[in-house]
Amino acid sequence: MDLMEKIFALAKRRGFIYPGSEIYGGFSGFWDYGPLGVELKNNIKKEWWKSMVYDREDVVGIDAAIIMNPKVWEVSGHTKSLTDPLVECKICHKRFRADDEEQLKKHGSEHDGQSDWTETKNFNLMTEVLLGTTEPKQKAYLRGEITQGVFVNFKNVVDSTRVKIPFGIAQIGKAFRNEITAGNFTFRDREFEQVELEYFVRPDEKEADKTFEYWKKVRMSWYVSLGMSKENLRFREHEPEKRAHYAAKAEDIEYKAPFGWSEFEGIHNRTDYDLKNHNLKYKDEDGEEYTPWVIETSGGVDRAALFFLLNAYHEEKERVILKLDPRLAPYKVAVFPLLANKEDLVKKAKEVYELLKPKFYTAWDERGNIGKRYFAQDEIGTPWCVTVDFTTLEDETITVRDRDSAKQERVVIDNLLEYFQNKLSL
Amino acid sequence: MDLMEKIFALAKRRGFIYPGSEIYGGFSGFWDYGPLGVELKNNIKKEWWKSMVYDREDVVGIDAAIIMNPKVWEVSGHTKSLTDPLVECKICHKRFRADDEEQLKKHGSEHDGQSDWTETKNFNLMTEVLLGTTEPKQKAYLRGEITQGVFVNFKNVVDSTRVKIPFGIAQIGKAFRNEITAGNFTFRDREFEQVELEYFVRPDEKEADKTFEYWKKVRMSWYVSLGMSKENLRFREHEPEKRAHYAAKAEDIEYKAPFGWSEFEGIHNRTDYDLKNHNLKYKDEDGEEYTPWVIETSGGVDRAALFFLLNAYHEEKERVILKLDPRLAPYKVAVFPLLANKEDLVKKAKEVYELLKPKFYTAWDERGNIGKRYFAQDEIGTPWCVTVDFTTLEDETITVRDRDSAKQERVVIDNLLEYFQNKLSL
Repeated sequence: MDLMEKIFALAKRRGFIYPGSEIYGGFSGFWDYGPLGVELKNNIKKEWWKSMVYDREDVVGIDAAIIMNPKVWEVSGHTKSLTDPLVECKICHKRFRADDEEQLKKHGSEHDGQSDWTETKNFNLMTEVLLGTTEPKQKAYLRGEITQGVFVNFKNVVDSTRVKIPFGIAQIGKAFRNEITAGNFTFRDREFEQVELEYFVRPDEKEADKTFEYWKKVRMSWYVSLGMSKENLRFREHEPEKRAHYAAKAEDIEYKAPFGWSEFEGIHNRTDYDLKNHNLKYKDEDGEEYTPWVIETSGGVDRAALFFLLNAYHEEKERVILKLDPRLAPYKVAVFPLLANKEDLVKKAKEVYELLKPKFYTAWDERGNIGKRYFAQDEIGTPWCVTVDFTTLEDETITVRDRDSAKQERVVIDNLLEYFQNKLSL
Repeated sequence: MDLMEKIFALAKRRGFIYPGSEIYGGFSGFWDYGPLGVELKNNIKKEWWKSMVYDREDVVGIDAAIIMNPKVWEVSGHTKSLTDPLVECKICHKRFRADDEEQLKKHGSEHDGQSDWTETKNFNLMTEVLLGTTEPKQKAYLRGEITQGVFVNFKNVVDSTRVKIPFGIAQIGKAFRNEITAGNFTFRDREFEQVELEYFVRPDEKEADKTFEYWKKVRMSWYVSLGMSKENLRFREHEPEKRAHYAAKAEDIEYKAPFGWSEFEGIHNRTDYDLKNHNLKYKDEDGEEYTPWVIETSGGVDRAALFFLLNAYHEEKERVILKLDPRLAPYKVAVFPLLANKEDLVKKAKEVYELLKPKFYTAWDERGNIGKRYFAQDEIGTPWCVTVDFTTLEDETITVRDRDSAKQERVVIDNLLEYFQNKLSL
């Protein structure tokens, strides 16, 4: 099995990610998160919100609706310009991205190399939705990016808070694209979750450039601080002809995935493109009125979950380890009684479990032997395993075993909460 | 102004909730959450997840996609049975819910009482979405309830975790309904967020009834524990003819809203209706195979946000107070320097702010006088205000002023983190 197959199998077997609607044959481009996956995803979102909103003084959050007045998407240019180039196979009429050479070659071989393609057409990626109670229903869209929700609320945020330029608006939420070729597990989906910051600055190219460089650094550091290996990350600048319709400058943070270097997060200089389209201005304290420029950082939670899993996956001689940062790991601690058939051990272990559980998401395991339990926790990335043994009954100490080093130390039960709080720097 | 108008105005003015797509004339049934609203909503979801997943041993979470294979909705009965009764005005062809007598009367008066209605028809509430790259596009649905995502993943969860009946699966996520009459602020929306638990029990009517009563109590206590006044809450049993197509028994927790007693959360006995439809079974440790029954608790986050705001709203002689439970309040603390023009006070206050901010979401205010700042924080529900004054510079104490009692006490700065941690029982 290659790494993608291993991650896909592990994700399903241990409850991280399941194919969407799997019992009905699946549904291409849609994924469901299981009990461990929802924790991983929520932890990624929580850390992002902490670093972007709670730890800063210049950023506030919002949460706009997925469905907006369709005028928003006409004005933003998305109904016209959110497109992918597409070709159609003249033999079987299937459609593919014109720039996906590998896919085209693969399809060609299905027709014994006799493939014949139509000319490239632009295909709109906005997903239509039908609203209303009378026929014909009103056509609206599922948002193709969460960004427009920020711009449309720009005036409301300025009027109802005390933000002053430069400031940012952060948002997390679902977006949808009618992708022609969804694929590479959760990398390219038709339904996906974004984490975005729109940072508003004075309309000054130099300041915009400085801010752009600042956010590049901040966002790259964030991924590294959460355990991403530096050698798996790089910046890549978009060539002018490949930039989105709104971007004057665009660089991606890319991850070295098994399927090649792939976009992790985009940093964009959107200039005053969007606010001008929406006819929105900002008036500063001196009464000067102008249209701010926008620097955007736009990441994907689903691909982040995938890349964090890929980055964390390690095989050792006798075990598989997900070396997830403890803040991202679904369970922080697992508690075991050394033997499941010794009542006093189980009772004491339950006490320790009840002590930890209200503070940290804690697993309980009493099946099989200790070795198997360690293996099972390593494979889902639980940073620490606590074992209650016969010594515990004598001196109120337990062993804490570290996931990555497999080293153990004895800790007094009374100090255990503080011990983990320090480890997690809570 | 009546209470609803006051809450609506406060919500917009202070950044809790804005009308969706407001700069384009709004979009009926869609709402955007501002900087304070997103915190309130996230806090509600966080407390729900803590009580339903983290604090329990018998419940795990999942997060399924909004768009599922359309077969799911045929099998679940939603494409046929998720309907509202509808009548059409023969004069102007507008449509209304047949059971909304107030609305019908109001519309009648627009035609000078000469209203004439068609017979009642059932109108399907599922929102259609068009997918794919070739015409005609594939018709799919935005989920009308998040519940089916749990059932479709029932086998995956059982296979990938160690849950054993009785156990529950919890989920939070968006759902969509083509409501004929959205209204009462965020109470009835076309896009809304649900918090749901599906709890699986043996197919035994007595056990199902016992579990139903258990969850009624748990859910009611949860709202009360978060500060809902008991006199604003009640249970109401659904008459058989008004129950959803899947429910053998249904009771609502209702809130006494200004527009009448209104559904807050539903507790349903769905029997084996859904799992049978999806042809899913459970095999217990002894090899016995059966179709479990399901007890469901289904709440709405948007109506919860509205009801918590309504319940928290208090007017006193000289101030408006949102008496939100500290766990739900957007900001936990606000920090002020007594005077904004005294450099040493501002410097010290900033130190206190920097101390608190990494642990609790903390506001900063140095505008106007202390009275105005208290007023501004009371109105958004900030439980505690910390003021740095001249005494602080002498003895390292600050004043903590309590929102509800308006009483103040002096606390040593070094004890402040612990002081608030205890207040919030962190």
